Amino acid sequence: MADAITIMQALGKHAKEAAKAMRVADTCAKNSALTLAAAIIRRDMQHILAANARDMDAAEENDLDAALKDRLLLNGERVDAMAEGLEQIAALPDPVGAIDNLRYRPSGIQVGHMRVPLGVIGIIYESRPNVTADAAGLCLKSGNAAILRGGSEAIHSNRAIAACLRRALVDSGLPQNAVQLVDSTDRALVGALLKSEEYVDVIIPRGGKSLIERVTADSRVPVIKHLDGICHVYIDAAADPEMALSIAVNAKTHRYGVCNAMETLLIHQQSAAVVPVIMQALLERGVEVRGCDKTCQLSDGLDVVLATEEDWATEYLSAVLSVRIVDDFDQAVEHIAQFSSGHTESIVTADYDAGQRFLREVDSASVMWNTSTRFADGFEYGLGAEIGISTDRLHVRGPVGLEGLTNQKWIVLGSGQVRQ
Amino acid sequence: MADAITIMQALGKHAKEAAKAMRVADTCAKNSALTLAAAIIRRDMQHILAANARDMDAAEENDLDAALKDRLLLNGERVDAMAEGLEQIAALPDPVGAIDNLRYRPSGIQVGHMRVPLGVIGIIYESRPNVTADAAGLCLKSGNAAILRGGSEAIHSNRAIAACLRRALVDSGLPQNAVQLVDSTDRALVGALLKSEEYVDVIIPRGGKSLIERVTADSRVPVIKHLDGICHVYIDAAADPEMALSIAVNAKTHRYGVCNAMETLLIHQQSAAVVPVIMQALLERGVEVRGCDKTCQLSDGLDVVLATEEDWATEYLSAVLSVRIVDDFDQAVEHIAQFSSGHTESIVTADYDAGQRFLREVDSASVMWNTSTRFADGFEYGLGAEIGISTDRLHVRGPVGLEGLTNQKWIVLGSGQVRQ
Repeated sequence: MADAITIMQALGKHAKEAAKAMRVADTCAKNSALTLAAAIIRRDMQHILAANARDMDAAEENDLDAALKDRLLLNGERVDAMAEGLEQIAALPDPVGAIDNLRYRPSGIQVGHMRVPLGVIGIIYESRPNVTADAAGLCLKSGNAAILRGGSEAIHSNRAIAACLRRALVDSGLPQNAVQLVDSTDRALVGALLKSEEYVDVIIPRGGKSLIERVTADSRVPVIKHLDGICHVYIDAAADPEMALSIAVNAKTHRYGVCNAMETLLIHQQSAAVVPVIMQALLERGVEVRGCDKTCQLSDGLDVVLATEEDWATEYLSAVLSVRIVDDFDQAVEHIAQFSSGHTESIVTADYDAGQRFLREVDSASVMWNTSTRFADGFEYGLGAEIGISTDRLHVRGPVGLEGLTNQKWIVLGSGQVRQ
Repeated sequence: MADAITIMQALGKHAKEAAKAMRVADTCAKNSALTLAAAIIRRDMQHILAANARDMDAAEENDLDAALKDRLLLNGERVDAMAEGLEQIAALPDPVGAIDNLRYRPSGIQVGHMRVPLGVIGIIYESRPNVTADAAGLCLKSGNAAILRGGSEAIHSNRAIAACLRRALVDSGLPQNAVQLVDSTDRALVGALLKSEEYVDVIIPRGGKSLIERVTADSRVPVIKHLDGICHVYIDAAADPEMALSIAVNAKTHRYGVCNAMETLLIHQQSAAVVPVIMQALLERGVEVRGCDKTCQLSDGLDVVLATEEDWATEYLSAVLSVRIVDDFDQAVEHIAQFSSGHTESIVTADYDAGQRFLREVDSASVMWNTSTRFADGFEYGLGAEIGISTDRLHVRGPVGLEGLTNQKWIVLGSGQVRQ
């Protein structure tokens, strides 16, 4: 552990030094580094693919499961998508230095906000090597320094990709240590990173729930995290039946393994007529439906199984859905308050009061009205890119883009005023 | 400790329940609770003063020092100021529910932000009983529930004040548990509060450095904190000498024991002519000046003592100032980066480039140009009131008002759109 701490202190010092330069780097230099990194990634594609092949061989030897190997695999298309991602980040407006709300106060001073980077960001992630480029690119554009700790199974791929970014930084006149990879698979280094509060300003874990829980439990550094996505769609009494069907099917079946997929469908008893129609549509698409008593009754003749208490608290991340008929609006909101993970919830209703109340009363990072939970996404929201989706209550909620990687400081302009 | 955890869990559950109602409480009910609390505090003044007298007697018995006793003391004027503070909070605009930046996306959905409370806020503070009213008032107006843990030496005063607030909540149709006082002087309860991550969303410690360091080290709940205020004024080469004198004297001598007082004065060597003038003005006001070599030379004949390395890193909170002559702008910014606590720094200059660079390059919660650091204050910035000044890097920096006690969630309005 002593060694791990020594290694991490060196990385931390380098990052802090680099963050000082990145904080005041001009937009042109940052964009140049991003587009150059994209070009170098395309140029070095064979090298990156060879490095990835070494990771894939090791994965084969270590008998990793197929899903993990798919996430680990790079090919020409995936490497190109990484480069394109960096170019897209270059094209986004620079959030840093923007001044907001500069207003005169009675004392004669002008007070406003300036957007500033957070400093040093530690990213801890699992097998996907593209996170190396995505996360580094977002940190770079937002004027932060990044310490990247990828999965040990992707170490060769991550090394190759990080080298492209560091080269591009140097060639753009920026410090290469603005992007540092923890170049070791020693697990003690994660522990040391989480205890580097002197050097690291925030930790962003990206990966499965167990990784994130471990990071949160051990970290002395503030964490921006995303736990579960137990998302609800609530079909209100005043829902248009066709819209309800379309949104429910999209929210569940558009993609299964994603955090913004619907896991529980709530239906107002007065909308019971839609139950057999929606259940049939879902079953036809191969979804396993677990319903409350009433759902089962209303789905007579359809293959709906009875839900258990546990179902309401489960993020399936697969072709399974729990369905509950609620007595009224309040019971729907109550159910969401009890079981939601605070990620994304949507109401389907033509009723103004119900919609307004839902927006106000549901306490989730994204609250929607007449649309699919699948829209909870940085690109769909117009952030251009996202480093993750926060289910925290402080700093930033929901999709985290460049702005979420910054904060504001106060600026005060005077002409000699002193306090009376 | 088991008992402490049980007590805190009960408080936490009540707070969480109350937070649900406070989150959707309308502005009128919240304002009514605040003005009613002010009226009840004025009506019950004799009762509050009697409770305070018990605390003062105990302070006498326990031989507390004079400064502590002054902070603990209530009188008619101070109780009235507390009531007035609540009325001022009632008069502030309600931040909750405000919708920002609702914009159409290419998919046809509208995406924007709604301002929302944080939830349950734990406040840990020391002897001043007025914090009970101030903190509770700010939490109430921002739609949060507060768990207050005041100093044990103020327990009777805090009890009497909290009772007024709880009565006002009930009489305004709001849950009395939106304001709860930890009604015990058992220190184990602080530890239990800091481990209540299940119920408490954020902890705000208010008090001396040792309190805040202890809270930060032990807390499992995110903390909004304020450590030191080692504030700098930098007199640039292009500073107007009269403005430099006036700002330096105000920043140091307007009040000594406050976090936004100047602790170190940096002077560009080309402005050396102001050194004896400013030193004399400060010495005349009873300030002890500790200067670098050059400062001592330039203050020939004046009673300036030589500063040690330790002086640059010291928050005096008293009539002491360290002064350093710097070679150039970069050395000033470098000195600030090394020694500042990130609270507030000010440059005095008529030079556009120097001012712009200072605003951008200095990484503190407040960065000022041609004005006194003493302006770093929630009232002066127009927040109406402040619960503290944050020197953190996440969520909120500088004076924390109602907005700092809230966050934003995403709201999405559609008309049946689904993800393609």
